[in-house]
Amino acid sequence: MSKFAPSACCPPLSVQALTPEAAGQLAPMFKALGDPVRLRLLSLIASTDEVCVCDLTDAFDVSGPTISHHLRVLREAGLVDVERRATWAYYRIRPQAMTQLSALLAVAGTVPATA
Amino acid sequence: MSKFAPSACCPPLSVQALTPEAAGQLAPMFKALGDPVRLRLLSLIASTDEVCVCDLTDAFDVSGPTISHHLRVLREAGLVDVERRATWAYYRIRPQAMTQLSALLAVAGTVPATA
Repeated sequence: MSKFAPSACCPPLSVQALTPEAAGQLAPMFKALGDPVRLRLLSLIASTDEVCVCDLTDAFDVSGPTISHHLRVLREAGLVDVERRATWAYYRIRPQAMTQLSALLAVAGTVPATA
Repeated sequence: MSKFAPSACCPPLSVQALTPEAAGQLAPMFKALGDPVRLRLLSLIASTDEVCVCDLTDAFDVSGPTISHHLRVLREAGLVDVERRATWAYYRIRPQAMTQLSALLAVAGTVPATA
């Protein structure tokens, strides 16, 4: 359903530097996450099984078309899938894409930053 | 050394949706990763202990000032630290920042995408 074709790429950055090709493939996924509204949208989708777009628009102070634009960016980056049923579109995360990015940034032997 | 003050934020997106404040804090870190040259620069820094800026410029087909700009973006996002010694600047990753992002994207029970 997405334009994004996942690949076997890549070991963690801390293990092996990226090729230019791999960086070109992965950067758009991070770019899609680089906006506060999109990051929150993704988190709302990721924190449940499936979300109706009708339930997403109420959570933000931006217009419906703006939400639709951000959802399209997430979809085209391969981070979410959409299914249209009757009137509404329903969004799910693509867990393997998120896991791919998570594994890429993992650094052995560290724990997340604390205040 | 960085402008970025790490916080205890946040559980994985698949566990809990982000607050607007947390999304506003985290999005610039992902945005910094959303460029192929920056992502490759970070991977070159991450895949070794410390990298002299003098060894980074040769790896890219872009100008020295462009590399410096991208390194500044990575530094201001809190993803790398820099130490100046004599003539050169030396870059290291901030492993806790990368681990924070990695943990945020982790989805229990999945493995990275394969072709």
